[in-house]
Amino acid sequence: MTALERAKDAALRARALKVVPTGMWGHLHAAKLPSAYPQFFARGDGATLWDADGNRYVDFMCSWGPNMLGHHHPEVEEAAERQRRLGDVLNGPGEVMVDLAELLVDTVAHADWVLFQKNGTDATTTCVTIARAATGKRKILMAKGAYHGAVPWCSPSLVGVTAEDRAHLATYVFNDIASLEEAVQAAGDDLAAVIVSAYRHDYGFDQELPTAEFAQAVRRLCDRTGAVLIMDEVRAGFRLHVAGSWEPFGIRPDLAAWSKAIANGYALAAVTGAEWLRDAAGRVTVTGSFWAGAVSMAAAVATLKVIRRDKVPDRLLALGNQLREGLDARARQFGASIRQSGPVQMPTMLFDDDADFRKGYAFCNAMLERGVYFHPKHNMFLCAAHTPEDIAFALDASEHAFSVVAALPTAA
Amino acid sequence: MTALERAKDAALRARALKVVPTGMWGHLHAAKLPSAYPQFFARGDGATLWDADGNRYVDFMCSWGPNMLGHHHPEVEEAAERQRRLGDVLNGPGEVMVDLAELLVDTVAHADWVLFQKNGTDATTTCVTIARAATGKRKILMAKGAYHGAVPWCSPSLVGVTAEDRAHLATYVFNDIASLEEAVQAAGDDLAAVIVSAYRHDYGFDQELPTAEFAQAVRRLCDRTGAVLIMDEVRAGFRLHVAGSWEPFGIRPDLAAWSKAIANGYALAAVTGAEWLRDAAGRVTVTGSFWAGAVSMAAAVATLKVIRRDKVPDRLLALGNQLREGLDARARQFGASIRQSGPVQMPTMLFDDDADFRKGYAFCNAMLERGVYFHPKHNMFLCAAHTPEDIAFALDASEHAFSVVAALPTAA
Repeated sequence: MTALERAKDAALRARALKVVPTGMWGHLHAAKLPSAYPQFFARGDGATLWDADGNRYVDFMCSWGPNMLGHHHPEVEEAAERQRRLGDVLNGPGEVMVDLAELLVDTVAHADWVLFQKNGTDATTTCVTIARAATGKRKILMAKGAYHGAVPWCSPSLVGVTAEDRAHLATYVFNDIASLEEAVQAAGDDLAAVIVSAYRHDYGFDQELPTAEFAQAVRRLCDRTGAVLIMDEVRAGFRLHVAGSWEPFGIRPDLAAWSKAIANGYALAAVTGAEWLRDAAGRVTVTGSFWAGAVSMAAAVATLKVIRRDKVPDRLLALGNQLREGLDARARQFGASIRQSGPVQMPTMLFDDDADFRKGYAFCNAMLERGVYFHPKHNMFLCAAHTPEDIAFALDASEHAFSVVAALPTAA
Repeated sequence: MTALERAKDAALRARALKVVPTGMWGHLHAAKLPSAYPQFFARGDGATLWDADGNRYVDFMCSWGPNMLGHHHPEVEEAAERQRRLGDVLNGPGEVMVDLAELLVDTVAHADWVLFQKNGTDATTTCVTIARAATGKRKILMAKGAYHGAVPWCSPSLVGVTAEDRAHLATYVFNDIASLEEAVQAAGDDLAAVIVSAYRHDYGFDQELPTAEFAQAVRRLCDRTGAVLIMDEVRAGFRLHVAGSWEPFGIRPDLAAWSKAIANGYALAAVTGAEWLRDAAGRVTVTGSFWAGAVSMAAAVATLKVIRRDKVPDRLLALGNQLREGLDARARQFGASIRQSGPVQMPTMLFDDDADFRKGYAFCNAMLERGVYFHPKHNMFLCAAHTPEDIAFALDASEHAFSVVAALPTAA
């Protein structure tokens, strides 16, 4: 087993610890990963990533979603650069805002209008505010354990959060129609919205696609009560279906929140909405210093055009099937008992009998040492720059990693 | 009077109206401006702006703050481009995050550590969350009419906002020590933080610098109660004093929120904090998909270095004095009764006896037609790309604009 060079990463962590609390914040904190993982990165290209020490990886996190077409995608970069030469953040939007809004309305099945922001959390928060403005009601139902952002109304942590921040938030269980009906009933005549993720992608758990019955029930209960169906597409958006993740069920939300992949890494988010919410969307006050930035919008136009033209979700589906089937075969070969879950475009692999993630960590450390960046707990992401050869490379590495897991001493 | 060409702007507005509620959102909505103003912009360079129809303006809004060194500043663009060629949003931060955090700790007097975000609102919300985590208390005091962001806890609009979102928010009057003392007393032993803007820059009102006594009182009351002093530097940050807007008073906050000018137009925000809040900052959950983006951080490093090296606040002070004195002289010359307020680096000019802004609108429309982009209600911004010739050009235009105001029919 070759230990990866980490001298530069260690030096950067030591410097960071002095000027950033705990050295990093949020989901990119390396403390949440196995010990071999780097904190700092030097470079990305396509689906390849180099850490600060120059170690190279085939990357299956794709920046945790934003990298959908590969780093430095020529068409995206050319569009961004063309706009950059003109201007980015000005005293108002550029023509590209209209181009992008039109393209989204044309692409996203439920969308009659669009608003732009910078963070996924901006988009989900804007959806909630619009829903309350439209309905005059207050209660928001979200799935237990779901992630819709990192601000007090929905943060996964309650540190620094007051009870009043969550006063009108209640939960249901994803895919559990009875629990949703119960939550709707409990909200009485004060139900503003049901927010639901494209699929259940909770950290550290098996992923779960919605059943058709559940999707239909969400829509039916919203229709019956006049509540707004908010779809959180921040994480899954555009990877499963360009027109909306629940299109296969024929279920359309009233509002949807988009971010991550929308501009292939440029900071952008969007809320798409149905006609009946246009008035409310025009009445709420939402804004940000950089929200009309034209460069990220130009990047988004190019990104969405490539996704549509190249049928990227289909490509990710094929790559994802190759990875899932290959991992299953190798797990069997090495006697590992694993579970793969969720959409193959956003792979998740967990070991059986691994509550403390000892096997998962050993597996991912070993993958990393062979140049493959996996995640032991979180759903991963494929991008259009992945090749069948990248997948084969990862599967080869997995033989080493499964053998490491097989050699682990039995837990005491 | 030459009417500006607006055919392209009108066509874009008509298209936008179909796909964006009311055609635009937030502070950049042209509906909030006099009739001659464009909604869409094609290009920016230095302190010059071109609208979608190719009309050219010397710009005194500077993208509402982000443009601090001029669009396309060569050193900022070179640093950003160098980082872009490596990578932007990856699976973790780049070395540049550490460089930037160190530079901010070295630049900002009160800062012992830094966290990064994308919006000013991210930064103010993070400050509030950290303050509550650190103190275990809930009440936040803000100045009546102050703007600290556009999310429910602090939004200037209550549309879509619940009473509980504001349950622990109370107000004081800026520069009114008695009102602050009263608010502190009313908060009892539940006071988490006092948030205060660098100066009072409310929309549509005369701007107001803090008195030394007020600044001292804010600090004293926070010290006495254990509350966190949060300085909102989002709008004024780096334009007045690089080390912090209240450095002339010798008053340092515990937390400060920065954004707008920090990366000369690249989307970035930061929270700086004092040592005693480091632990709380490490315990709260704040994160965003693009918050570790390396390109905006590279731009910020270059921006801050230029601001420090070129003593940009001093340059803005000289330009601002030229503008203020020149406008005063011309107002006298044309018999106009005006008030200029706030720091000269962020000019605000209002007409006396102009509650409906009829004079201000006529003045600004006339300025616009002469190629000068002023704002009739909001503080404006100078940038380092402004030249004494730009100021002289604006003053020449103001002679025309003051004469237009002088010729206005007396209100009925």
